[in-house]
Amino acid sequence: MGNYRIAVLPGDGIGKEVTSGAVEVLKAVGIRFGHEFTFEYGLIGGAAIDEAGTPLPEETLRLCRESDAVLLGAVGGPKWDDNPPHLRPEKGLLAIRKQLDLYANLRPVVCYDSLVSASPLKPDLVQDVDFVIVRELTGGIYFGQPSGRVVENGEEKAVDTLLYKKEEIERIVRMAFILARGRKKKVTSVDKANVLSSSRLWREVAEEVAKQFPDVTLEHMLVDNAAMQLIRAPKQFDVIVTENMFGDILSDEASMLSGSLGMLPSASLSASGPSLYEPVHGSAPDIAGMNKANPIAAILSAAMMLRLSFGLTAEAEAVEHAVRQALDQGLRTADLAPSGGRIVSTNEMVEEIKTAV
Amino acid sequence: MGNYRIAVLPGDGIGKEVTSGAVEVLKAVGIRFGHEFTFEYGLIGGAAIDEAGTPLPEETLRLCRESDAVLLGAVGGPKWDDNPPHLRPEKGLLAIRKQLDLYANLRPVVCYDSLVSASPLKPDLVQDVDFVIVRELTGGIYFGQPSGRVVENGEEKAVDTLLYKKEEIERIVRMAFILARGRKKKVTSVDKANVLSSSRLWREVAEEVAKQFPDVTLEHMLVDNAAMQLIRAPKQFDVIVTENMFGDILSDEASMLSGSLGMLPSASLSASGPSLYEPVHGSAPDIAGMNKANPIAAILSAAMMLRLSFGLTAEAEAVEHAVRQALDQGLRTADLAPSGGRIVSTNEMVEEIKTAV
Ligand SMILES: CC(C)[C@H](C(=O)O)[C@@H](O)C(=O)O
Ligand SMILES: CC(C)[C@H](C(=O)O)[C@@H](O)C(=O)O
Repeated sequence: MGNYRIAVLPGDGIGKEVTSGAVEVLKAVGIRFGHEFTFEYGLIGGAAIDEAGTPLPEETLRLCRESDAVLLGAVGGPKWDDNPPHLRPEKGLLAIRKQLDLYANLRPVVCYDSLVSASPLKPDLVQDVDFVIVRELTGGIYFGQPSGRVVENGEEKAVDTLLYKKEEIERIVRMAFILARGRKKKVTSVDKANVLSSSRLWREVAEEVAKQFPDVTLEHMLVDNAAMQLIRAPKQFDVIVTENMFGDILSDEASMLSGSLGMLPSASLSASGPSLYEPVHGSAPDIAGMNKANPIAAILSAAMMLRLSFGLTAEAEAVEHAVRQALDQGLRTADLAPSGGRIVSTNEMVEEIKTAV
Repeated sequence: MGNYRIAVLPGDGIGKEVTSGAVEVLKAVGIRFGHEFTFEYGLIGGAAIDEAGTPLPEETLRLCRESDAVLLGAVGGPKWDDNPPHLRPEKGLLAIRKQLDLYANLRPVVCYDSLVSASPLKPDLVQDVDFVIVRELTGGIYFGQPSGRVVENGEEKAVDTLLYKKEEIERIVRMAFILARGRKKKVTSVDKANVLSSSRLWREVAEEVAKQFPDVTLEHMLVDNAAMQLIRAPKQFDVIVTENMFGDILSDEASMLSGSLGMLPSASLSASGPSLYEPVHGSAPDIAGMNKANPIAAILSAAMMLRLSFGLTAEAEAVEHAVRQALDQGLRTADLAPSGGRIVSTNEMVEEIKTAV
């Protein structure tokens, strides 16, 4: 019986609908297992720009720091697309990652049996796919300085900086090894060591960390090859660890193995404070407010919160089981239509899952 | 009736076998159409390190500059993996790109009818796929300075620099528009403008260039989304233009649409001198010298040379037709086995194609 304070940041577009679905499921978990979850709401992204003039208000940060975990929806939308860089919704996301020290982004990729046919890949390739991408989230080219525009000798240029400190690499690679220990004991470290200095450091550090995990196998893979292997033979992977930008690209690609981006949860673990949980998908402005969005990625993110922030394993499993059951019963949000079944709304999917918890 | 000087740089591993196949096919074209092709050989990559102590000898560069076009195999292999960075085979590849100003890397992705079932994707998704990736090849994070290791306040760091000048972006985007004009008139510019300064400049320049091509549609796509769309709905693409690293990742991913990396040719067009043609695949040390490699990527690269460097359209079509015919007749190198047919050696495939030219 625990008390848990959860900061909820719905953000923009379908972020609102899917976090509200996840909150309902958490409430059902609270009732069934006798926990008290309190939910406090904060602004982020476009919603925060509109109401507070900045994509990540101080108040939101304070709320998060005082909470046990953060549940985030999604940010962004055409309304803010022409804003200057510092007033763009995504800046809120990047800032909260940095401010809360959310260095380890865990993106599990699982293909549910009943969704095998929703994937663009051949069924035998995706059946039983089960790996996790561990993406470094607070370093690399996302945050390196200098980054900006320069005019030199009348020439216009733009520059970004990919920078990694040894210890930033160490902690994320270590996280990957720890996860692999509880899984199939294989880490694939993805880099571009034949071109990038930062990747050569990455590879060296990965080798060093590996020495402390003799029971886990380490392999290195170049990022271009990894982009290919993810669709050629995805079952070869257990834990993939990589830097920020490569992780961004590879995890969106990998989402297609599970049938839809609407299925993928993520956890962003903090080095020092509360961790954050969010669906991998974006704010999908085209379907926002239409009660069509797939709430499963947000709901599975809440399950990750139960397991990783609160240590509530049985509770997390109950949620995951309820999701599997809803899918097995043939319920499908629109994004999952290619796999047959009955098309339902966001609300209907949430209702079904929370009842089954 | 023309005279053409071709510099052939076989490089390492299967590079030797596949360039030799392409040369045979070019000789057959010469006989059939009455052209004189002369072939002069140069060292690059590991072979050059072994024989000349450097991955790109001056002599090779001179040979290329005096030629009308360059045919390259592949570089690299485990033998040189532990060499210091400046003595690695890939350095030869990067150096020749920079030295010959090969700024525009064209990677056509076509799914041949008889290979539809060789792709890991569902047949209806890849059937009739036909697009080209235009990758910037001499800028970006591959060449930006500073790039290296630093120790600051006892902290070890590594840095790479992603730099683009406005004019570098202009010329590659323009190339994409010119190609789109002769195709389905759609350009997809891929960037990460929500995070990178260089991508925001890229997007601005793309918009500017687009004004000169009112008959061509321009769309922007974020790189993470592009990695997903390439497998979700690849037929939406006509011409994809992107910076060096994104192009590296996306083109290897896209190779899976055509069934095998062994099918993909490329052209690297120079701003000032001879252009270079090479298969997208690597040196595949595991099957080198075994007469098993797929020579088609190299042969189709030679066809691109005929068309783009020599303006020999009918000749290029004859080669492409011969390739299609060999595949339709059921000939398959080992990499294409999943699509049925009869497994043949490199030599048998070359023989069949050159006879059909
Ligand atoms: C919105 C964007 C800044 C973000 C990223 O690139 O990290 C998103 O794509 C993600 O993966 O969470
Ligand atoms: C070998 C390597 C340096 C090269 C690159 O990254 O450009 C290769 O992957 C390619 O795509 O030609």
